[in-house]
Amino acid sequence: MSDLPKAVEFHEEGPREGFQIEKEIFPLAQRVELIETLAASGLKQIQVGSFVSAKAVPSMADTPELFEAIRKREGVRYTALWLNETGFRRATNTPGVDLDGKLLFYTTDTFCLKNNNCTAAEQRERQRTWAQLYLDAGISLDKAYILTAFGCNYEGEVPVERVLENVRYVADLANELKMPMPAIYLADTVGWANPEAIRRMIGAVRELLPDARIGTHLHDTRGVGAANVLAALSMGVTLFDSSIAGLGGCPFAKHANSQGAGNICTEDMAFMCEEMGIDTGLDLEVLIEAALLAERIIGRRLSGKLMHAGLLSRRQAVSGA
Amino acid sequence: MSDLPKAVEFHEEGPREGFQIEKEIFPLAQRVELIETLAASGLKQIQVGSFVSAKAVPSMADTPELFEAIRKREGVRYTALWLNETGFRRATNTPGVDLDGKLLFYTTDTFCLKNNNCTAAEQRERQRTWAQLYLDAGISLDKAYILTAFGCNYEGEVPVERVLENVRYVADLANELKMPMPAIYLADTVGWANPEAIRRMIGAVRELLPDARIGTHLHDTRGVGAANVLAALSMGVTLFDSSIAGLGGCPFAKHANSQGAGNICTEDMAFMCEEMGIDTGLDLEVLIEAALLAERIIGRRLSGKLMHAGLLSRRQAVSGA
Repeated sequence: MSDLPKAVEFHEEGPREGFQIEKEIFPLAQRVELIETLAASGLKQIQVGSFVSAKAVPSMADTPELFEAIRKREGVRYTALWLNETGFRRATNTPGVDLDGKLLFYTTDTFCLKNNNCTAAEQRERQRTWAQLYLDAGISLDKAYILTAFGCNYEGEVPVERVLENVRYVADLANELKMPMPAIYLADTVGWANPEAIRRMIGAVRELLPDARIGTHLHDTRGVGAANVLAALSMGVTLFDSSIAGLGGCPFAKHANSQGAGNICTEDMAFMCEEMGIDTGLDLEVLIEAALLAERIIGRRLSGKLMHAGLLSRRQAVSGA
Repeated sequence: MSDLPKAVEFHEEGPREGFQIEKEIFPLAQRVELIETLAASGLKQIQVGSFVSAKAVPSMADTPELFEAIRKREGVRYTALWLNETGFRRATNTPGVDLDGKLLFYTTDTFCLKNNNCTAAEQRERQRTWAQLYLDAGISLDKAYILTAFGCNYEGEVPVERVLENVRYVADLANELKMPMPAIYLADTVGWANPEAIRRMIGAVRELLPDARIGTHLHDTRGVGAANVLAALSMGVTLFDSSIAGLGGCPFAKHANSQGAGNICTEDMAFMCEEMGIDTGLDLEVLIEAALLAERIIGRRLSGKLMHAGLLSRRQAVSGA
């Protein structure tokens, strides 16, 4: 209806989120096939892997080889994650990585100290250094993430002002460095969001910066992911991070204190959007193929549902399946 | 926020929906424990089993013994399903069954013919007979279900008028038989609903009958169940059928042509409501206990997520856990 966006964009995180948490290291060829299938679905951005310590995350150690092996498709950005300058330099030196500048902000000191050994205010200052680094390297700064934007397991529910002070910092920085305003991504890092909190938080950001592009990075930790996506859509959000088959987050672990609890599922959420008349630019049948492939690779049932239920017969009829 | 109801009621269907589809027959004592735990959570209505052909559904053959075994809790209705007069008579003759009159309507002839060997119009006339039967037996007619209210695998998307003609029939019948208007339940029998369809369909029913109580029976067939619940809440729906742990629907089967695909998950949806300030009257910790018990009984991972992630630490702090 009128309050929903006409089109949205999903950025795929499964190849990194899904495999970094696994103890097993899956064959390169299988991950290549998954990434190539994802690219064939119409996804415009796929996070392929990460440049982090091979000791800490052995499953990501072959990220350079992965980038070398995939056949690239025109119009798709193949991105990667890094957490420090060493990682960034490795990414820069790896052919085929589509470098995108991201800033990472925190809402609570406790969470930030545990993750980065600095306070949220210190982390903001570090982001100024990163921003300068990206600009100097000629890399556009596309996204500013506000982690634990809804709640944190250490400090509880996050007051709106904690998010807004970061948003203001980003706006001031963009102004100061004369760069376009990055999209503001609200991340529900540990699964605290609910639809009303989403509406409230996005409403507050919109009020502060009416023209900002807003994205979300949501997890389906407690089964309300789809409702959170709907709430975000109703607030005009058009950018969604997601994982094919709901990859990410170990289904046999307690997620309460984990950052990695299952992302919202790309194909289920794309299906929901398409059913509501929101254009995703995605081929749902190819996404289902990718989801089933992910499940075969991982070797256990994943949380995505559409891949098991199938498309509606109307759609099947239209597409001739 | 202002457009959401202040309080909602979940009616638990897990003990029937979850076990009727299983090939294995689970020990009576385990199912008794599950039902008693569910009753301890504050649920006001629990569907215990069904009086159907023991040959067709062997797992429900011991429904009378189940009713005999459970220790009843004041204020909880322990209900059952039947599909024909023989079943109804068996339910009537079983001590401890809280008899509730339900009417069942269909929106498409094809689906109705396959299920009942009659057209949707003929099914309406049959409901008149059932209504009279219930009234003669002194049983209140609480609910009128409209099955496949959003779509049907044989005839596709369901036009609003197909639902409304059934709603009008119920209203006329209530008028004619001088009984209170039953709650209208829109059932997404085969997983076709999406949030916009929910808003549209419920809006149409509300327009026709502004004072009708409206409930939903939703499945999470394609991963949009939570969003559908949110859409229903935003339309003022206060009655929800659900299954503990998301019981119902085999996780290893294609659901596209099955009626049994996983119900929305009681504890995840109750959590969502409570987080939004909607009173459910339910103890989430006891629900989680019941969900984990259901998973232990079934012996495989079920689709509910809250039970694995745990409550938010704020809530844990409040409840002392």
